[in-house]
Amino acid sequence: MGEVTLKQIAEELGISVTTVSKALKNYADVSPKTKTAVINLANKLNYQPNSFAVNLRTKESKTIGLIIPEIVHHFFSNVVNAIIEKAEKKGYLVIILQSNESEELEKKQIDLLLSKRVDGILMSLSNNTKNLDHLKKVIEHNVPLVLFDKISKLLDCSKVVIDDKSAGYDATEHLIKSGCKKIAHFRGPLNPQGSIDRFLGYKKALEDYNLKFDSSIVFTCEKVSFNEGYKFAKKIHTEHKDVDGIFAITDLVGIGAVAYFNEVGVKIPKQIGIIGFSNWFMASVISPSLSTIDQPGFEMGKKSLKLLLKEIKATKKGNQIQHQTVVLPTKVIKRNSTAF
Amino acid sequence: MGEVTLKQIAEELGISVTTVSKALKNYADVSPKTKTAVINLANKLNYQPNSFAVNLRTKESKTIGLIIPEIVHHFFSNVVNAIIEKAEKKGYLVIILQSNESEELEKKQIDLLLSKRVDGILMSLSNNTKNLDHLKKVIEHNVPLVLFDKISKLLDCSKVVIDDKSAGYDATEHLIKSGCKKIAHFRGPLNPQGSIDRFLGYKKALEDYNLKFDSSIVFTCEKVSFNEGYKFAKKIHTEHKDVDGIFAITDLVGIGAVAYFNEVGVKIPKQIGIIGFSNWFMASVISPSLSTIDQPGFEMGKKSLKLLLKEIKATKKGNQIQHQTVVLPTKVIKRNSTAF
Repeated sequence: MGEVTLKQIAEELGISVTTVSKALKNYADVSPKTKTAVINLANKLNYQPNSFAVNLRTKESKTIGLIIPEIVHHFFSNVVNAIIEKAEKKGYLVIILQSNESEELEKKQIDLLLSKRVDGILMSLSNNTKNLDHLKKVIEHNVPLVLFDKISKLLDCSKVVIDDKSAGYDATEHLIKSGCKKIAHFRGPLNPQGSIDRFLGYKKALEDYNLKFDSSIVFTCEKVSFNEGYKFAKKIHTEHKDVDGIFAITDLVGIGAVAYFNEVGVKIPKQIGIIGFSNWFMASVISPSLSTIDQPGFEMGKKSLKLLLKEIKATKKGNQIQHQTVVLPTKVIKRNSTAF
Repeated sequence: MGEVTLKQIAEELGISVTTVSKALKNYADVSPKTKTAVINLANKLNYQPNSFAVNLRTKESKTIGLIIPEIVHHFFSNVVNAIIEKAEKKGYLVIILQSNESEELEKKQIDLLLSKRVDGILMSLSNNTKNLDHLKKVIEHNVPLVLFDKISKLLDCSKVVIDDKSAGYDATEHLIKSGCKKIAHFRGPLNPQGSIDRFLGYKKALEDYNLKFDSSIVFTCEKVSFNEGYKFAKKIHTEHKDVDGIFAITDLVGIGAVAYFNEVGVKIPKQIGIIGFSNWFMASVISPSLSTIDQPGFEMGKKSLKLLLKEIKATKKGNQIQHQTVVLPTKVIKRNSTAF
């Protein structure tokens, strides 16, 4: 099917292209009768405005791009929900792309979003993103960019994060205050800053409370999965009988550990205390319920979008943008997996 | 910043616009030296091909639109993952939009995808979509459309589904064969076909096994949530003591019921058998583990994408499209929440 143009509509109705265009934009100097005729014919012919042309005129596509590593993750789901909900209220549609933790895919997606002329981009980096050229390109294109959760300190743009180091410290301190003397850490992958910072917080808390750091009880969860939590809990149980506390990088990993100890009859929190991270609702549902750190996903989405819309507005006006880094608070949620 | 055009690149290098265009498309009749010069300059200037113009030339944007009611839902997450994984292999990028169960938003999203010139649309309908004009518009535009999971029988396009009625029958039959005599159903909302069909399957199984249907023990989960499962389990426990089996519309609802019965000390499956639906991995993790119906989300995504790509190819060639309805098999997964 050929594309219907303003010209065709104009010819069919015997009016000018300008009048058709004005009628579709509801200009006051076109009569209601003409407007109705134009709109009816446009609908009948399935007329679609040329999006590129629309952009050139209005300089706004009223769409926002959102790139996240993984949609399945409940934390990102909360962020996504907040962004969609708030964006819709402000008249923006959100194009979501999943990078699947791939730098290569992330690059393609940035190009796609730029070519689709989004008004701004919200993004959480993939764990494997090392080269930042594609992000610098966004900034050079003068397209507002806000990073959240997984960010790079090397990029000159606004950021919304939590303080992972202090949250990791709080989680470990909570275990120590629950009476744990030898605390293992099921950490995240080696690259992303958040995972490094939670580990550093863990180490610092041990230091402050005069507990010896022992790298043999720090296990790396490459996939941050239930199965890794289960597997490392088994390792603790069979090879490190003196461990009496575990700080897991996420609730999912923590739930894997809980499942293993339940299976073999190790009592939580009497024999071992466990704390997760993120406050997924499943953490409150399992038995025993899992203590955790509340990571405000919905707030993070809301705040990121708010910053982005502000920068879109400023860019449109040609104003200078003041980049901000917002650090959202976290807190310990005490449940039945720790004896505090 | 102004947009860089082919003309600027041509002028700067002192060659023709055609040569620049051919170089960027890697045509054989442009020398490697010229190609390198063009590509380097294009990169340096941040040249972005005008996506609309590209479309007009190639008639393909190599992007696919995907509209789903809710991303957080683990079943849709599996579908999304399959689609993204397979699409990437075939060189397509996926634009994901979440309708949030809103017909209004769905309409806007269809318009957005059409205006962005996607090559095809994959979609699962919102529970509240009654008017189908926006979907008919997609079909009239000759843009391939494949519906999955939540479909409308009234639309002339390809569909990928499960047989919800027979799956609902199987779930109920499994409870009956486990020894349950009075089976409640925590059903989904009244509108979507899948929820209706599961209910009809439940009713048919009761009938076939001579168990009396009792509408007072059918509860509607408007939000299909954990809390509704918990709430209706409480209702069963306090007002319908003779109920000894529950078929829950999803695993999440079933897990809510399990949580309630665990809390009050009702023994599962001895005093009450519970079966969920969808085979979310959490169903295998909770205690007791939840019997369920396996709903092949990943397969559904894969099959839907395959059909869509086939139709995109046929459309490009101007061939007639044969619409298909694919019904994927489901199966009962027996775990510890039923005494079968």
